Amino acid sequence: MNRRRRIYEGKAKILYEGPEPGTLIQHFKDDATAFNAKKHQIVDGKGVLNNRISEYIFNNLNDMGIPTHFIRRLNMREQLIREVEIIPLEVVVRNVAAGSLSKRLGIDEGTPLPRSIIEFYYKNDELDDPMVSEEHITAFGWATPQEMDDIMSLAIRVNDFLSGLFLGVGIRLVDFKMECGRLFENDMMRIVVADEISPDSCRLWDMTSNEKLDKDRFRRDLGGLLEAYQEVARRLGLLNSNERVTGTGPVLVQ
Amino acid sequence: MNRRRRIYEGKAKILYEGPEPGTLIQHFKDDATAFNAKKHQIVDGKGVLNNRISEYIFNNLNDMGIPTHFIRRLNMREQLIREVEIIPLEVVVRNVAAGSLSKRLGIDEGTPLPRSIIEFYYKNDELDDPMVSEEHITAFGWATPQEMDDIMSLAIRVNDFLSGLFLGVGIRLVDFKMECGRLFENDMMRIVVADEISPDSCRLWDMTSNEKLDKDRFRRDLGGLLEAYQEVARRLGLLNSNERVTGTGPVLVQ
Ligand SMILES: Nc1ncnc2c1ncn2[C@@H]1O[C@H](COP(=O)(O)OP(=O)(O)OP(=O)(O)O)[C@@H](O)[C@H]1O
Ligand SMILES: Nc1ncnc2c1ncn2[C@@H]1O[C@H](COP(=O)(O)OP(=O)(O)OP(=O)(O)O)[C@@H](O)[C@H]1O
Ligand SMILES: [Mg+2]
Ligand SMILES: [Mg+2]
Repeated sequence: MNRRRRIYEGKAKILYEGPEPGTLIQHFKDDATAFNAKKHQIVDGKGVLNNRISEYIFNNLNDMGIPTHFIRRLNMREQLIREVEIIPLEVVVRNVAAGSLSKRLGIDEGTPLPRSIIEFYYKNDELDDPMVSEEHITAFGWATPQEMDDIMSLAIRVNDFLSGLFLGVGIRLVDFKMECGRLFENDMMRIVVADEISPDSCRLWDMTSNEKLDKDRFRRDLGGLLEAYQEVARRLGLLNSNERVTGTGPVLVQ
Repeated sequence: MNRRRRIYEGKAKILYEGPEPGTLIQHFKDDATAFNAKKHQIVDGKGVLNNRISEYIFNNLNDMGIPTHFIRRLNMREQLIREVEIIPLEVVVRNVAAGSLSKRLGIDEGTPLPRSIIEFYYKNDELDDPMVSEEHITAFGWATPQEMDDIMSLAIRVNDFLSGLFLGVGIRLVDFKMECGRLFENDMMRIVVADEISPDSCRLWDMTSNEKLDKDRFRRDLGGLLEAYQEVARRLGLLNSNERVTGTGPVLVQ
């Protein structure tokens, strides 16, 4: 375990060299961060839940023929993934106005959008992930026009699947962020969904109470972050109603 | 004169009802404003120069078959234009990194861009004209996808023409902003270039000295705004070398 080579340590995850060439181990930490890490806190058990929820979503995407980097979960905190060349974009799909879109365009949070909107942010912490358009992306060569078409098709498919999945368990998918990467295989390159999809990277509102079940609980100091993530896991059938999660995994509620 | 109906008074111009239905009179004021009018100053003669420079550019665009709202200049400060339904976008074309692009994407001012980049800003002073992409524009119905194609084609043609025009007189067209509108005529609608194109709405750098000959002189307190605009007019052949401009027009330098 200790002799594994650490490839990258980010705010929420660590990447280790994987067992085979072209694979990595993605390790989920308990760190909650927001506003480009200006706000930071340890939430015991969050990594366990995100690992489990992300596994569930990526497995389903793979099964539906939506290509992803995901191979399989290894343990409570780790999953085996294919190494990709990350495209330096945060791809955000929005169904309901919230967060920065509400603020920038003056649209009340909770207003359904006339149609889903895809946004791109340039992944660059020093610049605070500025919003960019296809014009910037293709001019600076961060992705080609063909790759942008693939990314947008993936984004729409993932949004369709996630909207349905969460709808089925009484949750509105307000928006989510995904990352894509270039996967090189048999002299071929394809764009796949990478990174994670979890309550850290989605806005999830309870359908009836509008209660937030996502990282906004942390961003806005609403408390109950772990409980919210547990509720998402429970509704997705990943946690029994008599279980709760700790830093080492699910335990029976006494 | 006094009985004309005032349709709109903006920061730099006033629109009056025109002599025929479907026409307006665009009056150029001497007001220089920046940062959403937080900075403001009167520059005696600026309106006269912008009226003249914008006339020259729009006449040339019309002659080249690039449709515009412009009919003809009426006097020192006023021009006759066709009334259009303004599309609420500032269309910015950039050839060289400067201003907000440099700041947001961390690219030094003066760096030539790999290719021209078109940006869109939602015209809304309350929101400080936020940058938007085609996704927002078409989702909120500010313009249709077909209109966006027309707008981008116009933007590219105007950029090509202006780049050439200024190159010919020793000036680098760093970037410029234009507005478009819907012109309704004979049961037809077309997108035309509207508003003004002048040193207020362009970044113009002297090719050899890199001296700024545009509104950045005002934004950045460099002084000599009127002199810079006069220099642009002179190079375009709109002002003799022995003339300077005052609030009532060109006068011979004594
Ligand atoms: N399959 C993959 N191959 C290579 N890198 C990946 C893969 N999946 C995700 N990554 C990258 O691994 C890192 C995950 O770490 P983490 O999410 O904690 O980073 P972060 O602090 O959020 O920083 P970043 O802004 O880069 O996401 C991210 O940089 C992500 O882009
Ligand atoms: N042909 C036209 N028909 C109708 N409106 C026009 C036409 N050309 C320009 N306009 C509008 O006339 C106004 C010109 O005034 P001015 O440029 O001073 O406004 P402003 O203070 O800059 O505000 P804005 O942000 O609306 O441009 C602008 O709102 C512009 O969109
Ligand atoms: Mg990340
Ligand atoms: Mg204006």
